[in-house]
Amino acid sequence: MWALLEPVFRAGETFPHDPAITEADALVAWVEQSQAVMVAVDANGALVGTYYLRANSLALGAHVANAGYVVGEHCRRQGIGSRLCQHSLQTAQRLGFRAMQFNLVVSTNTAGVRCWQRNGFQVVGTLPGAFRHKQLGFVDALVMVQTLP
Amino acid sequence: MWALLEPVFRAGETFPHDPAITEADALVAWVEQSQAVMVAVDANGALVGTYYLRANSLALGAHVANAGYVVGEHCRRQGIGSRLCQHSLQTAQRLGFRAMQFNLVVSTNTAGVRCWQRNGFQVVGTLPGAFRHKQLGFVDALVMVQTLP
Repeated sequence: MWALLEPVFRAGETFPHDPAITEADALVAWVEQSQAVMVAVDANGALVGTYYLRANSLALGAHVANAGYVVGEHCRRQGIGSRLCQHSLQTAQRLGFRAMQFNLVVSTNTAGVRCWQRNGFQVVGTLPGAFRHKQLGFVDALVMVQTLP
Repeated sequence: MWALLEPVFRAGETFPHDPAITEADALVAWVEQSQAVMVAVDANGALVGTYYLRANSLALGAHVANAGYVVGEHCRRQGIGSRLCQHSLQTAQRLGFRAMQFNLVVSTNTAGVRCWQRNGFQVVGTLPGAFRHKQLGFVDALVMVQTLP
């Protein structure tokens, strides 16, 4: 799992976690703080992606899910992110969530934004300069939401 | 402090915390998880309001502040919320934050929404049905943001 997560956290381009995060802290953030964690494996059983799913807020906001996705660096552009997203939406629905929300989608992550839009998410707001991108500095972040059936 | 917070949490109309929250958990949520906590007192030294201030996200989003306000039930419509809000903006600026964001402003809390708008916040997004109001059921929530000078 850490082999998947480490390059993404280190890059500081998509998740707000400290790029210097330790393996232990990353696993707490990804796994222990989640309600469900799934992994995708290829035909050989190698890990190619993962997502977490959790409530996005406390009790009176806990009917809205939040999820995060990572696809292995060498397995991108194969639709794995999209399949993880679809799976997470089904899992969220099965767990009784009424919607899914992403709070801080980095606007420069255009592949991610397009992927989530293709899978039914809408941009409901833009947060000016809300993400400090490791390469680009302060960039806008998007709030994306999808109501579940 | 608990005398201020308890009726607001119990009401389940503005904060997402479990309305059955204990005093100990409420104080952890309000005080221990915050970077700054302020109280407003009247001319007799009685507590009339409080706010917390904290980073709204992790490292690469930690330049955006988040705050929450409570005004005592018997001290409302006196501008105390507005003064707490102004004070929190000054504190946030002094602490180096670049913006302040409210993630889950309950849309039916019209006095709050108007107060924050008067104090420079803009609604940047609407989250459909994101708050389960104890009296009204699922109601929309707003994301409100203000860039700091």
